[in-house]
Amino acid sequence: MSRPVVEFWYEFASSYSWLSVMRIEPLAQAAGVEVEWKPFLLGPVFLALGWNDSPFNIYPPKGRYMWRDLERLAARYELPFRKPSGFPRSSLLAARVALVGVEEGWVASFSRAVMQANFAEDRDIGERAVIADILSAQGLDADAVIERAQADANKLALRRQTERATELGLFGAPSFRVGDELFWGNDRLDDALAWARSHGAG
Amino acid sequence: MSRPVVEFWYEFASSYSWLSVMRIEPLAQAAGVEVEWKPFLLGPVFLALGWNDSPFNIYPPKGRYMWRDLERLAARYELPFRKPSGFPRSSLLAARVALVGVEEGWVASFSRAVMQANFAEDRDIGERAVIADILSAQGLDADAVIERAQADANKLALRRQTERATELGLFGAPSFRVGDELFWGNDRLDDALAWARSHGAG
Repeated sequence: MSRPVVEFWYEFASSYSWLSVMRIEPLAQAAGVEVEWKPFLLGPVFLALGWNDSPFNIYPPKGRYMWRDLERLAARYELPFRKPSGFPRSSLLAARVALVGVEEGWVASFSRAVMQANFAEDRDIGERAVIADILSAQGLDADAVIERAQADANKLALRRQTERATELGLFGAPSFRVGDELFWGNDRLDDALAWARSHGAG
Repeated sequence: MSRPVVEFWYEFASSYSWLSVMRIEPLAQAAGVEVEWKPFLLGPVFLALGWNDSPFNIYPPKGRYMWRDLERLAARYELPFRKPSGFPRSSLLAARVALVGVEEGWVASFSRAVMQANFAEDRDIGERAVIADILSAQGLDADAVIERAQADANKLALRRQTERATELGLFGAPSFRVGDELFWGNDRLDDALAWARSHGAG
């Protein structure tokens, strides 16, 4: 019997994805569940729903609430938080690099560092220099990694992963999948792990 | 020092409101928190956001997910559930009657019975006969209550309560308020009660 697996679909610009990226590893480890990191882009998923911006920008009351909710949750999880001066930030390069990180085994720590930059340090993760900085701090060769991230095959892989998100019925991030079972939102992280434990072993 | 209070804003057609209506009383009691029942209509609130239907109907992937999520949550809370054959059902009469129930002290049990009819028995709560049936089963004089519910002053009171929801920044249901602190969704019921305990005593 193999270890149960949860697919973790997240977007670097997404505020609630930030919470799950920071939290998932120790929780999954404690639950004995393996995490498959699935960075993708919410933009095309939202466009398919008719939104050309974050719903938190399109619907101001939802946005106001979200930032306050985030502040409360950050306090609960003891995560440093500074509201980003730009939202949502461009996450294209970060997502492409993360896909390389999936291949090479450093996606988790890279993803946490990008989220920390976006939601605790108010740095623009859309800038190449910020991503390069993060990669260097991880002990990686930033130029070489970014070159691999920008290769056609990797760009295509991210596009495919994003299309797959829509095909799977995802409509927001973070989302978690265990087999065909979908869980949406940081609020469902624990439920997804519990489901993987009880239903997900192959 | 008075007892802490949570305002409970809910809509009879709303699936997640169903869960909170069924759950809130024992949880609030255990927390030592008083519940102010605030029935309102989501329709006008949604219209102000540009939606002329439930977002679960406008955005099919959200709707598919919601019904599955609801099924899982109903199992967790051990609530009988049958997917309503119409969604969202007209909740105008039920909300008007509930306002009378707030005045007369029977809003909690009436609200649970309406939710049970809508989400466990697939009865059309938009029909006067169904509401009358529920009132009678509560030992109330159905015709007299419905007449009070349909009086101009009560109709106006519901309209005002719904306008107030928009003014307060509500954008969905259930919502909970403790002072100026807003919590959205059945997922935040426990947080709202905990907040009321620690911040809400007058």
